[in-house]
Amino acid sequence: MKVAIIGATGYGGAELIRILKNHPEVSIHSIHSSSQQGKSIHESYPHLQTVVGHTLEDIDVNKIANEVDLVFTATPSGISSKLVPELLNKGLKVIDLSGDYRLKDTTVYKEWYKKDAGDEHWLSGAVYGLTEWLEEDISDTKLISNPGCFATATLLGLAPLVKNKVIDNHSIIIDAKTGVTGAGRNASAMTHFSETNDNLKIYKVNEHQHTPEIEQVLSNWNTEVSPVTFSTHLIPMTRGIMSTMYADVTKETNIDQLFELYQESYQDNYFVRIKEQGIFPSTKEVLGTNFCDISLAYDERTNRVTVVSVIDNLMKGAAGQAVQNMNKILGIDEKSGLEFVPVYP
Amino acid sequence: MKVAIIGATGYGGAELIRILKNHPEVSIHSIHSSSQQGKSIHESYPHLQTVVGHTLEDIDVNKIANEVDLVFTATPSGISSKLVPELLNKGLKVIDLSGDYRLKDTTVYKEWYKKDAGDEHWLSGAVYGLTEWLEEDISDTKLISNPGCFATATLLGLAPLVKNKVIDNHSIIIDAKTGVTGAGRNASAMTHFSETNDNLKIYKVNEHQHTPEIEQVLSNWNTEVSPVTFSTHLIPMTRGIMSTMYADVTKETNIDQLFELYQESYQDNYFVRIKEQGIFPSTKEVLGTNFCDISLAYDERTNRVTVVSVIDNLMKGAAGQAVQNMNKILGIDEKSGLEFVPVYP
Amino acid sequence: MKVAIIGATGYGGAELIRILKNHPEVSIHSIHSSSQQGKSIHESYPHLQTVVGHTLEDIDVNKIANEVDLVFTATPSGISSKLVPELLNKGLKVIDLSGDYRLKDTTVYKEWYKKDAGDEHWLSGAVYGLTEWLEEDISDTKLISNPGCFATATLLGLAPLVKNKVIDNHSIIIDAKTGVTGAGRNASAMTHFSETNDNLKIYKVNEHQHTPEIEQVLSNWNTEVSPVTFSTHLIPMTRGIMSTMYADVTKETNIDQLFELYQESYQDNYFVRIKEQGIFPSTKEVLGTNFCDISLAYDERTNRVTVVSVIDNLMKGAAGQAVQNMNKILGIDEKSGLEFVPVYP
Amino acid sequence: MKVAIIGATGYGGAELIRILKNHPEVSIHSIHSSSQQGKSIHESYPHLQTVVGHTLEDIDVNKIANEVDLVFTATPSGISSKLVPELLNKGLKVIDLSGDYRLKDTTVYKEWYKKDAGDEHWLSGAVYGLTEWLEEDISDTKLISNPGCFATATLLGLAPLVKNKVIDNHSIIIDAKTGVTGAGRNASAMTHFSETNDNLKIYKVNEHQHTPEIEQVLSNWNTEVSPVTFSTHLIPMTRGIMSTMYADVTKETNIDQLFELYQESYQDNYFVRIKEQGIFPSTKEVLGTNFCDISLAYDERTNRVTVVSVIDNLMKGAAGQAVQNMNKILGIDEKSGLEFVPVYP
Repeated sequence: MKVAIIGATGYGGAELIRILKNHPEVSIHSIHSSSQQGKSIHESYPHLQTVVGHTLEDIDVNKIANEVDLVFTATPSGISSKLVPELLNKGLKVIDLSGDYRLKDTTVYKEWYKKDAGDEHWLSGAVYGLTEWLEEDISDTKLISNPGCFATATLLGLAPLVKNKVIDNHSIIIDAKTGVTGAGRNASAMTHFSETNDNLKIYKVNEHQHTPEIEQVLSNWNTEVSPVTFSTHLIPMTRGIMSTMYADVTKETNIDQLFELYQESYQDNYFVRIKEQGIFPSTKEVLGTNFCDISLAYDERTNRVTVVSVIDNLMKGAAGQAVQNMNKILGIDEKSGLEFVPVYP
Repeated sequence: MKVAIIGATGYGGAELIRILKNHPEVSIHSIHSSSQQGKSIHESYPHLQTVVGHTLEDIDVNKIANEVDLVFTATPSGISSKLVPELLNKGLKVIDLSGDYRLKDTTVYKEWYKKDAGDEHWLSGAVYGLTEWLEEDISDTKLISNPGCFATATLLGLAPLVKNKVIDNHSIIIDAKTGVTGAGRNASAMTHFSETNDNLKIYKVNEHQHTPEIEQVLSNWNTEVSPVTFSTHLIPMTRGIMSTMYADVTKETNIDQLFELYQESYQDNYFVRIKEQGIFPSTKEVLGTNFCDISLAYDERTNRVTVVSVIDNLMKGAAGQAVQNMNKILGIDEKSGLEFVPVYP
Repeated sequence: MKVAIIGATGYGGAELIRILKNHPEVSIHSIHSSSQQGKSIHESYPHLQTVVGHTLEDIDVNKIANEVDLVFTATPSGISSKLVPELLNKGLKVIDLSGDYRLKDTTVYKEWYKKDAGDEHWLSGAVYGLTEWLEEDISDTKLISNPGCFATATLLGLAPLVKNKVIDNHSIIIDAKTGVTGAGRNASAMTHFSETNDNLKIYKVNEHQHTPEIEQVLSNWNTEVSPVTFSTHLIPMTRGIMSTMYADVTKETNIDQLFELYQESYQDNYFVRIKEQGIFPSTKEVLGTNFCDISLAYDERTNRVTVVSVIDNLMKGAAGQAVQNMNKILGIDEKSGLEFVPVYP
Repeated sequence: MKVAIIGATGYGGAELIRILKNHPEVSIHSIHSSSQQGKSIHESYPHLQTVVGHTLEDIDVNKIANEVDLVFTATPSGISSKLVPELLNKGLKVIDLSGDYRLKDTTVYKEWYKKDAGDEHWLSGAVYGLTEWLEEDISDTKLISNPGCFATATLLGLAPLVKNKVIDNHSIIIDAKTGVTGAGRNASAMTHFSETNDNLKIYKVNEHQHTPEIEQVLSNWNTEVSPVTFSTHLIPMTRGIMSTMYADVTKETNIDQLFELYQESYQDNYFVRIKEQGIFPSTKEVLGTNFCDISLAYDERTNRVTVVSVIDNLMKGAAGQAVQNMNKILGIDEKSGLEFVPVYP
C-alpha cells in the first residue's frame, strides 16, 4: 500500500516518515510541502540523509489521487479544512492530524480556533480516531480526524472513570504539561531556547483549543459531564506530555479497585500500559513510542483520585496514533510498524 | 552583626553565603559543616574562590555562642531538632531551614517525616516564618522556623482566597512543580542528570511532607479548610517552583475583583508581585531573587479559580526568606541585602 | 541464535536490549546482573514494562554456556577481565564492551586504568572491533573488544587523513564532547543534574583512558603518528559525542579533494555518513542510531583541517557497534536490527 | 552620573539594566529602543516589573546629549556605526557593544561582517576595551569598543602565553563553546529550543567574525603570531562561554612555571581568577558575574599546552565588561556595581 504525506516538513510529518520508513506493509510514495517543493527532505532534516531519498513535491491532488491509497495531512488547522475535501472527493482516504475535523459543532470550533470550521458534510462523516476507544469499525471510513496531543493523554487517562461513573461530573481538573515540540517548528518567542530552557511557564489557562475536544468526547461517554478546568504548562524538554488529572470520587472505592478498573479497561490494548500501584510514569519512559503509560492515586483523606498519564506528543499524540489508525483502516495488526522500544535514557 | 551558618555545604547554605556576602548590615562570621571541617569552602564550591575566604569549622556550640548573634541552621530534618535546642540554650537566636520546627503537632510530624519530632518546649515557641503573613512582631523571637519551599509558594498563592473565604473549603487542589535543586546536593537516582534531563516525573503524590505544613497554616487562617490534594512534579531545570492551584469559588465574583483582592492583600509587600491580568509568571522571572510572582484566572464556565505562583526555591523558598526573617528580627528594612534583580535569561 | 547480556542494568546493557528486542535473527535468551538477580528488568527500567519480560539472573557461566551462543559483557573495566576468560574457556563467543581487552600493551593499560590488565593470552587474540576498519574476517573470532565511545568517533574521523598520510603526524589535537550518559548510571557529583544542567565542564585534560586506545590504532595505521592531545568536555545533554579534530595538512590539497577522500573511504559503509560540503553534523541527527556523521573544513590561511564527527555514545559508541560486530560474526548483513531512523527532534 | 542605554530590549541591554540598577555611583536615566518606544520595559521583560520603571524612548540624539553623560549602545553591528558618530559629535562618551569599532582595518571588517565598516575617524580613536589589558588611561577616551564575547574569553586565556612568547606562533587552535544567548533574542532556527535542546552543534568553522578581532589583538601583543584556527560550538545552555585553547610550547617550561606566569599576569585583576593546579573551571561557576576563570594543563608527551577559560557571555562577554570600562572612564573602582557572587547552582 502506498501513502503520501502532506506537510512533511513539520515535526508531525517528520515523525510519520520515521515510522513509515520501516513499516512492513506500507511504503511512503511521496511527500509534499507547500513551500519547499523541489528540495530534498534532508535539506530540511539533515538526519534523513541516506535514510529517505524523497524530494518534496507540490500538492497536486489529481496526481496524488492517481498514485496513492491514503494520505496523511499533517497540515495546520485552517489549511486542512481546505485541502481535505479535495482529497476525499478524489476517492482518497485521509488521516488528518489537524484540529479541523475534531469538533462536530462548527460554532464551538470557531469560538476556540478563531477561524471558520470545515464543511459540515465531511465533518459529520469524520471519525475521531482515539484508537483505543473507537466506537465503530473504521475499515470503510474515509476520514479519520486524529486527536490532539493533550486530548489523547487526557482522554485515555479519564476514560475508565468517566465511562464507569466513578467520579463527580463537575469536578474534573486537568493540569497538563508539554515539551516544546508541541509548539511546532516555527521559531517564536514560545520556542526560543533562551526563554524556555531552565524555565517553567504556564500558558493558555482555560483557553487551550483542545478543551472542547476533550469535553465533546467526555460528553459522548457520559452526558452528565460538566465543562472541565484545563491548563497547560511548557516544560523545558523536547518531547512528551504529562496530564495530571484530579476528580472527586463519588462511588465507594479503594485503590485496588481503581487499579483493577484500569487494568480491565485496557487489558486488550497493547499501547496503554497501566503501571503497578505506587509506581508513576515519566515522559521519557515512552519516548519515541506509541505507548500511553497511566497510573493513579486515591487519597482517602480527600476522597479524590489523581490520575497521571504520559505520552510522546509526536507519537501517540500525533504521528504514532495516525499510523495506528491507518493500521486499523487496513485491517492489519494495530502494532504493525509501531513496535518501538522506548529510547531510554 | 555577626552570624554563623551551619550546614554551609548544602545548596541552602551556599545561597545564604551568596546573599550575606553583600549584606550591608550583617557579616558572615563563621561557616560550619559536620563533615568538611578544616576545608576551605571553595573546595566544595569552586565558584566561591576569591569571593569567600572562610574555612569550614566543626560545630562547637560554645564557641559559636561566644562569637555570633544569630545562627542559620541549614541542616537536614532530624539533625536540626538535635542541634537547635543546644544553640537556643546558649542564648543564640536561630533561623532553622529544616522541617523540624514547622509542625506544632508532633504526631503529625512523625507521620509525615517518619522520625521523631523535636522537643515540645522549643516547638511551641517557634514562629513559622512566612514573612508576609507573620502574625506577630518577631524582634524578640528566639527561633524562626523557615517555611518549606512548596509551602511558601502555595500559601502565598492561597492566602487571599482562604483568608477572605472566597473558595469552597473542600476544593483546594495544588499541582506543584520544582526544579532539581529541591532534592539537595546528594547524588541519587532522583538527581541523576541522565534520568531527569528532558524528562518529566511526578513524585510523592499525596505524600509530600510539606502537605501538613500547608494544612496547618490554612487552618490557622480558616478553621473550616479541609485537607488538600497535593502532588509534586520534577521539572528538568535547576531552580524554581511553580504552584498551580485550583479551587471552586463560592462567593459571587469576577476576575477584576479577584485581582483587586490580590493587589490589596500584597500592596505593602515588596517581594510579592501580582502580575497584570492575562499575564502569567514563569520561574525564570524570579531567578536569584526573593520575589514570589502571582497571577490568576477565573473560569465562568466552571466557577473555578486557577492561581499560579512562582518562586526561586533556594531564595524565597529557603535562604532568601531566611534572610528576610533575619532582617525582621533585626528591625531593619526587610529588603536589606535582598534587592537582587532577576538573572534573566 | 541466542545471546546473553551480562551487565544488563547499565545503560549499555539497556541499549543492547532495545536493539536486540527487534533483531530479526537473534533473540535475547537471558540477562544477567551481579546485584539485581531475581528482579524483573522493569524494576530497574520501567520503560521496559510489557516490552521485555526477562528476569535478571545471576552469572552462572556453565548455565550460560549451555544455553546461548554468544555473550555481551557490558561490565565495568576490571570486571570484564575476570569474567571474559571464564566465558571464553567454555567455548562461548564474547563481545566485551569494557576497556579491558582494547590495549595490547598491559603496562599501558595499567598506567591509564590504574588497575591490572587482563591475561595476555586472550588479550592477544582479541580483535578490536572498530567495524568499518576491521582488518580481518571476524567470523571465527572468539573475542571482540568493542571500542570506546570517544575512540570510535575520533578514529572514524581521523582514519582517511592518517591512512593516506595527509597530515603532520605530530599535529593531531582532539577536542571531544560527550553527553552525561557517558558517565554511566551510578549517581555521582559528575552526573548530578543541578551541577551539570545549564553548565559546561572540561574534565580529564590529557588524562582520558581512551587516549592510548586512539594512539594504538593510529600507530597501527601509520607508525609515524605521535601522541595526540586529547581533552573531554561534559555537555548538558543525555546522549551524544562530538569529536572536533584539528591537524596540520602536509600534502597539497583542497576542500574538494578532502571530501572526495572521505567519500571514497566510506563509500561502502552504511553507518558512516559524509555530510555535504559546508554542512556540519549535530549529535541529535544520529540519536538512537548507529550512524557516525562526519564533515570537515580546510582553512587555507592556516593550512589546517578541522574534522567533526558525531555518534550516539550508547549506539555506535557502545551497544550499536557491538551488535554490528555480532552481525559480522554471524555473517549476516551488518545493518540487521540496526536500521533505526534517528529520533529527531 | 547619568547614563542612557540604547538597544535596551536585547539581552545585552537587559543585562546592563540588571547591573546598573544597583550601581552605587551611576543611575540609568533613560532606555531607548528603535521599535518599542512608548512601552514599559517590563512588557518586553516581565521580570523587571516593579524593579525598573522606565518606559522605552525613541533615539533622540539631542535629547540624550542634553540629559546624560555616557551612552551604552547595545545595538547590532551595522547600526552602531551609524548611531555612534552622532552621539560622539554631541560630546557624549560612548561604550559600544557591537563589532563596528573593533577592527582597525576596514577591509577586514567588510570581509568578515559582509557590510561596510564605520568611519575611519572615530574608528582610529576608539579604544578596544579588553579591560585587563588596556594599554592606556581611558579616562579621556570618547569611544570604547567593547570586545566580543569569544574574543574576551580567548584573549584573556592566551595573553600570558603570547605576550611572554611561550608558544609557537603558528600553532594556536581555539575550540570555543557558547550558550544560546550568544545568538541574541531574535527567534531563529539557531535559537529554536527543539532543535538545540539535548543537542550539540558546531557552526562557523573558521568563519566566525570574532576571528579577526582576536588576531588583531594577538598581533598587537606579538607581531609574529599567525592566523589562528577558530571554531564555535552551540551548547544547550542559556549563558556561558568556554574557550579551550591549544598551542605548542617552544620555551622549556613546566606546569608550575606556567601557573606562576598566569598568577603573576593577573595578580592585580580581581575579575580574572586563576584556578588551582588540576582544577578546571566550568561556566556555571561564573554565572551572573564579571569573572573570567582560567586554568591550564601542560602535556610533556606532546609539549603542548591546553588553556581553558570561561566567562558569562552576557557579563564579562558584554554588559559586565562594558560597566567595568565605564568605571575606568569614571576613575572609580573597576569592581563598583560588579561585585556579584556567582549564582550557583
